[in-house]
Parts: sequence; structure tokens; C-alpha cells
Amino acid sequence: MNLIKIKRALISVSDKTGIEAIAGQLHECGCEIISTGGTKSKLTEAGLQVVDIQQITGNPEAFGGRMKTISFQVESALLFDREKDAEEAESLHVQPIDLVICNLYPFAEKAKLQAQLAELIENIDIGGPTMIRSAAKNYKWVTIITDPEDYGQLSKELAEHNGCVSEEFRYSMMRKAFNHTADYDAMIATTMDEYAGEKSIRLSYNQGKELRYGENSHQKAVLYRDQHTIDSLADLEYLHGKQLSYNNILDIEAALLTVRALPHSAAAIIKHLNPCGFACGKDQKEAIINAWFGDPISAFGSIIAFNRELQLETAEFLQLNNPDKSQRKFIEVIAAPAFAAGVIDYLSFHENLRIVRLDPDRLQRDHDLRFVQGSLLWQSSDNKLFDAIKQVSGENKTLADDLELIEFGLHTVRSLKSNAIAIVQRTKGGVLRLTGMGTGQPNRLIATQLALDKTLVNLGNEANAESISECVLVSDAYFPFADNLELAAEYGIRNVIQPGGSIRDKKVIKKAKELRINMIFTGLRHFRH
Amino acid sequence: MNLIKIKRALISVSDKTGIEAIAGQLHECGCEIISTGGTKSKLTEAGLQVVDIQQITGNPEAFGGRMKTISFQVESALLFDREKDAEEAESLHVQPIDLVICNLYPFAEKAKLQAQLAELIENIDIGGPTMIRSAAKNYKWVTIITDPEDYGQLSKELAEHNGCVSEEFRYSMMRKAFNHTADYDAMIATTMDEYAGEKSIRLSYNQGKELRYGENSHQKAVLYRDQHTIDSLADLEYLHGKQLSYNNILDIEAALLTVRALPHSAAAIIKHLNPCGFACGKDQKEAIINAWFGDPISAFGSIIAFNRELQLETAEFLQLNNPDKSQRKFIEVIAAPAFAAGVIDYLSFHENLRIVRLDPDRLQRDHDLRFVQGSLLWQSSDNKLFDAIKQVSGENKTLADDLELIEFGLHTVRSLKSNAIAIVQRTKGGVLRLTGMGTGQPNRLIATQLALDKTLVNLGNEANAESISECVLVSDAYFPFADNLELAAEYGIRNVIQPGGSIRDKKVIKKAKELRINMIFTGLRHFRH
Repeated sequence: MNLIKIKRALISVSDKTGIEAIAGQLHECGCEIISTGGTKSKLTEAGLQVVDIQQITGNPEAFGGRMKTISFQVESALLFDREKDAEEAESLHVQPIDLVICNLYPFAEKAKLQAQLAELIENIDIGGPTMIRSAAKNYKWVTIITDPEDYGQLSKELAEHNGCVSEEFRYSMMRKAFNHTADYDAMIATTMDEYAGEKSIRLSYNQGKELRYGENSHQKAVLYRDQHTIDSLADLEYLHGKQLSYNNILDIEAALLTVRALPHSAAAIIKHLNPCGFACGKDQKEAIINAWFGDPISAFGSIIAFNRELQLETAEFLQLNNPDKSQRKFIEVIAAPAFAAGVIDYLSFHENLRIVRLDPDRLQRDHDLRFVQGSLLWQSSDNKLFDAIKQVSGENKTLADDLELIEFGLHTVRSLKSNAIAIVQRTKGGVLRLTGMGTGQPNRLIATQLALDKTLVNLGNEANAESISECVLVSDAYFPFADNLELAAEYGIRNVIQPGGSIRDKKVIKKAKELRINMIFTGLRHFRH
Repeated sequence: MNLIKIKRALISVSDKTGIEAIAGQLHECGCEIISTGGTKSKLTEAGLQVVDIQQITGNPEAFGGRMKTISFQVESALLFDREKDAEEAESLHVQPIDLVICNLYPFAEKAKLQAQLAELIENIDIGGPTMIRSAAKNYKWVTIITDPEDYGQLSKELAEHNGCVSEEFRYSMMRKAFNHTADYDAMIATTMDEYAGEKSIRLSYNQGKELRYGENSHQKAVLYRDQHTIDSLADLEYLHGKQLSYNNILDIEAALLTVRALPHSAAAIIKHLNPCGFACGKDQKEAIINAWFGDPISAFGSIIAFNRELQLETAEFLQLNNPDKSQRKFIEVIAAPAFAAGVIDYLSFHENLRIVRLDPDRLQRDHDLRFVQGSLLWQSSDNKLFDAIKQVSGENKTLADDLELIEFGLHTVRSLKSNAIAIVQRTKGGVLRLTGMGTGQPNRLIATQLALDKTLVNLGNEANAESISECVLVSDAYFPFADNLELAAEYGIRNVIQPGGSIRDKKVIKKAKELRINMIFTGLRHFRH
């Protein structure tokens, strides 16, 4: 424990939330309180007896407030070794300070407001970080609090230990203090770079958890959480099953992004970061049935995500406790924002199934980061589905009128790795579903072929001219030649969505007309690599 | 310019490289030099007159060196506003200090040596950052130098401006100073986290360059450089052509990683992050011819990388100035570590072709970072090809004896997106090449089918039983069932490499024996997503 009695505290805060209460408690513990400027006024108003910092420094406050605390006396009081240096301190009339409560001038807020450089410079705190770093360095004897959120814990320590503070608490607050000053100078550094026209970026992650292994078992892996984000994939709650692997995390992200921001109940089945099954409708059970339809072979060993509370009747579709084991649908991970009564129990029947909770709609998605060797690619996220819906071929306006289906098709193809082709359909029951996809191909024609073949197999007995003519083939990028249309027409496809923008668009449109294909241009490409 | 005369300098450095020379120059400019401890001894030995810092602070050096510089006098001398506060400074007997040369206790080096916590704590510099940050805040009048690398520039400034320093220089050094203190506290924070058993990581990137756009034209994108890496993809030299796009950067990385760390001259042709053509041999022209062979359709619009100086006769294979335009091979980017005489001229014939220089063998690859929503995945890189080569089926030992071909096959499949199948071959001319690949499939059987179909088309007239029997089919992960082998055997494949490790390995081996397939297990999976 190594308890240290708090006899003297130095309080100097920019954010004054909750400061009276904690200062009051310190006072009651018999602690002497030293303070500065605004903080001192606030504490005095609250009826506390406060020593002015200038009585300790022996110097006046000077230079418009730039010099308040920095002094031989204050930093010595924080920094000296209570054992080795005790005599020296006495001879130099340095009295120990045991606690610093300090937070810094609001540089970040000013930077966000794009303040003038001179104003920003004025908001760079010098005395604060010096006190914080001095106290943190000497954490063996000194407690440093930089966040009003920690007053509660300090209060508990004081109450439990009769006005003392434990070493565990001091160490933990020391770590927080250095993280705070690191963040503070990171913000100053990137802002000063920005004002000089240089783009720089600093990222910080913590709470690292070792994963079972990396992409392969001979690779190690760790999942970290962004220190400054509110909603993170790292927040997913493990409810059941083995530890997650690196690939599980990647697949869970792909699954959650696929079911994110949709108007209806959706289910996505992911294999190697691609939805191989995906459906969306008013009824969740219909959604999983129709998602499974997309690739019933690849669905084995997949990751499934839902965007609504998972219902028992939906989960039962997996038949995990069917006495006929061949009927059980083996999957790796299930993710959902919530689980209805009985669902976890039911799913837990499968020992290895990992169950995780995270709401896809809470995931921020305004930018993506991608690391390439020794560098970082930042990009704004692909959050727009189309520029404008423009029918460039065909008399039939059914597709152009079904905006929901168009959006579902574009959302699906955007979730696939390029080159990507998605074939989607609105079933007679009103469910939107993926009937077949082709992904990750260097040659678009092969992606088209894969999606068509899969659709044909999936529709099976239904695969007549009528059912295929209801399908919509969606391409993530333009068709450079008409060959894709010719291939699609051979299978009976009558509806095509693509961005357009090829220098050969005229020829492609001409061919669509010849083939009596309804073709829509969206004006937006959706590569994903 | 806003020149400021350096009349008084404070020098206190942990790294004493080159300090005498720059101090000597300052002295010659008539500048008074203040210094501390070891730095002072060194400068005095060099024959310079130096004022001891304690004469300025008015305090003794105290507490085993923890208190040296921090004082009202020193920080006031750095911080006061030379205009507004001039009178106040005079009344407080504060004389300005115009330059600080300071670098910090070597915390990072100690941390790398995994020093004891107490020793690390002792190496947290408090006075240094306070001086650096004070001087940096007051950059309008004060110059702050934190890196011996900048002595040259300071020296130039002093020489050019008659002992003065320009505001541009002061601002630029101020940015460097805050980046330095941010890095310093970042290192302390992550180290203190580590000692408490918490994994945290802080990353910093600068030199951000806006790219044409992101993965798609409606997305913005920036490429940053890792501040702390020696070799970065961001260092690639643009020699010719349009600005690079986000996708170009991703493809260039994939291309360079594909040709990295190979014993012979290699050429890789990349489309959507996958090598669709790849070959390796003693002759570079043979390499490009055989790489092109892998997918002559997809190679159009691709990215090509070489691992050796690009020779003119290799480049001429592209026929960029062939009067018959249909013979010209249009590609997007060429990357190589160097270009022989005449090559750039030749390639520049194609106006839009981007030519970039970077040596793939200089790229570090010990870990990969991957960003997922609000979190970060760290993993050690997949730098091992196999655990052990074990022939589990077949009498013919030709393949097992050709370690070079095995390694080429594994290196190729490791460069493809999962599920991946690569079919490779050693040509009669001794070149190792990719004859066909299947990539990015949720279902391994489809990847196998794609690779086989491509191989059959590529071998064309050569596609007889003999030529196909020389090919080797490599799988990035084990075959869960024997169906892949049956399919391969139908095409005449006689050699297979896979990691093994399925619960059905016995059945798969039995099938390989039945089909008279030579099969090798490697013990290592190579997923890449």
C-alpha cells in the first residue's frame, strides 16, 4: 500500500468542475490547501482557507499570468526525494507538497475554434505541465490528479485510508498524468504544424489485449482501443466462447459495417471480410433465412451480424441443438446489439461459438485509416451511395422506382472487395437479398461470371426467366466494355446498376438497349480493397 | 524576417554531439553563454567562457540534480513578452535569454534496455521540457534548438543574419520542439503503462500529402509519413506522371512486398492488391515476359514492380512507342529501386504512366498495423514461409527437392488475398512463374477452379498433360475436404503444397495417394485479408 498522508495540496485548475467538494474533503482531513488565481477565489468563496501560491514561490505573479507557479520552491516541494533529500529540503526551507490537482489551459478547444495563432500561443500552458510532470515523476510520494473524473476515486482513497493515498492509486494517476501531458503536447505539435501548412497526425491507443494469434498462428497480435474515441470496436462485449482471433475482429468489423445504417432488420454473413450472404427486411427471421440463401456452403464457419436485438426464433434457424448433427449450422461468431431472453442460453449450446455484443449503429464512420509500410493513409469514408439515379437504357421503370432496392444493391456492392459484382433481388415476401456475388477479381468479367453462376445455383428450381429477370446486377465500378452485359444477358439479367464514366459508355449503353436491359448510372464508384 | 539578435544563450544538453562548435560560433557573435553541469565542463574545456546557471537562478543545484534550471528567473527570462512586459522584467531583474539549446535525458534508450522502474523514473527530465516549452511558447523572440541536426541551420542563420535568427527559423524550431516534447511524454506514458501491465501505443505521422482522392473520387485522402521510421513507402520518389491516387499507393505497397526479399530478378503485376502476374529468374526481361503471361488481360491498367534496376530491354517489352497502338501495353505505375540509362526517357513516352523509385528491400516488415473502427490491430508480419517441408503423398520427389520452387509458390500464395490458390511452374528456361491464381473467395473450391481455368487458358497450346503435370498448386490454407484435389486432378495437376492441419487430413492424404498426386505439407497457413 505504502500510504502517504496528504498534508499539503496544490490546486490549480482550468476546468473547475467539482473542485469545491474535493477541496472541502481535503480541508476536513486537515490538509493545507495552496492555490492560484481563479481557483483560489472559487475555493475562498466556498469558505475554505487557502494559501496563495505566491506565498510559497516567494515571487510575484508576473508577465500577465505567464509566471504563476514555476519556481524553485514549488517544484522542489514536488520533486525532492522524501528519504534521501529530507535534510537538504529542510535546509533550503522546502516544505513537501503531497498532492497536485491540476488541469491545463483549454488549448484543444481553442484549436478547434481555429483561433488566431497569437491566442493559441497564449493558451499553451507552461506552469501546469511542469507541476504535473514534477508531481508524476515523484509519484512514490506525491499524488497527481489531472482529471475531474478521478475526484471520486481520490475521495474514496482519502476516506478509506484516513486522509492517506495508496501507492497503487498514485502510480495509476501518474500514468494518467503522463498520458495527459503527452496528449497535450501532441495537440500543440499537430496544431503548430497545421498553422505552418504541414499535415501531421498523432494517434494513441491503449487497453491492448493479446489475441489468440494474428492472421496466422505463427503471428502474434494485439487489439488496442483508440484512447480518444467514444465508440470502438474494441468495446465489443464477449458474452460466450473462445477468445477472438485477429481474423474474427476483421470479419466482425466487416459484418457490422455491412449491417450498419439500414432502415430494416438485417443479417450479414461474412467470410474473409466479404458478405457472401446478406438480407434485409421487416422480419428478422426472414432476414437470416434469406441471408443464408446467398451462399449456404460458404456460410459454414462464417461470422454473422445483426443490426437489431437478436430474437430467439431467428437464432433457432441455426438448429444448434438439432439431434441430427448434420442439420446444425456451424458458425464462428454472432454479433448483435442485444439479445432477447433465452437467446444466449440457446446459442451457448454450441461451445465454440463466440457471441459478442456491439451496436453497429454506434460505430463512427467518418474516416478510415490504413497503414502502409512506414506510412499512413487517411481517407474520408465511403458514406454516399450515389450521386444521381439516371436510367440510361430500357423502357421499364420498375427498378428506377424501387429506390430501396437500388440502395440495398449499392450498399451491398460497397461492402464487397473490388472488383465486385453483387446480384440482388426483392423477394415476393418483400425481403431484399443478395442472390450471388463475385469479389476480389483482377478481371471484372470473372466477378460477373462468379455472381451469375452463384445466382443460378441459388435460385435452383426457381431459376426461370421470370425470377432472374427480377434480379439486379450491381457493379462497383463502370463496365469498360459491353462484354459484362452480354454475359449477364445470356443468364437472363434484365436490370443493371453501375456508376458509368467509361470513355466507352456510349457503346455500353447501345449494347444495353440492344439487349433490352434496364441500366441505371449512379455517378459514384465504390471500390473497396 | 523579424530578426532577433542572440545576445544570451542557455545550453544544457544530454547529447553533447557538436556542441563545442556551435557554442564557439555563438561566442564569436558576442553571445553570452549560460550552461549547466556536464555541458558547462565540456564548453569550459573547449576554452569558452561560460556563466553557471546557478548564477542566474539564484538557487543552488539541489536534490541530486533534480533541481538545476527550474526557477522564476530562468523561465521568466524565456517567457516574458519582450514588448508588453519589458518594464516589468527590468523591475524584477529578469534579463532575456534569446536561445535555448537543450535535449533531454535519454529516457527512450533506458526504456529499451528495460531498466528498473526507479532508474527509468530518474531519467524523466523535468527541467529540460520546462525550458524547451517556455522557449517554444515565446518563439516570437526566443529560439529553441532540440536536435544536434539543426546546429548547421542555426549556424547558417547566425552567419547570414549577423548573429540574428529569423522568425521562420524560430517558428520551425518551435514546431520541432513541441513535437519533441510530445514524443518524449508519449514514450514515458507508454512505458509507464507497460510497467503497469497495460499495452498502449502512440503513433505519429507527418509530411501529409493530399492525394488526388481516396478509394473513390468522392473520398478525400492524405498520405502521411511515420515520423520515426527510416524507410517509408511515403519516401517513394515520383519521377514522372500524374499524381498518385490512394489505390495506387495500396497497389504499389502490394507490388513492392511481392518482389521483396527474393534471390533473383523479379517482376510482379498487381491488380487490386493481388499479383495476377509474377515471375522470378536470373534474367529481368524473362521475368517480365513470364509475369505478363500470368494474366495478359488483367495486366492492362496494372501496377508493376521490379526488385532490381530496371533495364531498357525489360522496359521495351511494354512497346510503349510501337507505331501500332494496339501493341502498346498500358499500365498505371512502374516501381523499381533504380532505372538504367535511357529507361525513364523511354517510359516517359507514355504521358500518364507514373514512374516511382523505391527499393523494396529497404522496406521494414516486422509488424503490420490495421485500423478497425475506433481501434487498432497490431500483428507481427508473416515473415516465415514454412515450418517444415514434409511430403505426405507420392513417390516422385522432384518437387520436394526443388526448394526454390516451393519457396516461390509459398511466397506467391502469401501475397494473394484469402482464400487463395496459386499455381506456379518452373519453365524450361528456369524461370519461376505464376500460371494462374484464384483469390478473395469465400469458398476455396472456387479459388481452385479460378486458378486452374486461368492456367489452362495461359498454357494454351502448351496445355498438354506434360506441361500441367509440371505445375504446382499451392493453397494458402488446408483443404478441409478432398474435393479440391479431385478438381485439380481432373486438370492434370500432379503437385500440391498446402499447410495441412485439417481434422480430415488423413482422408485428404488418402485421396492424394489414389490420385497419384505428390503432396507436401508445410505446417504454416498464409492467410492475408
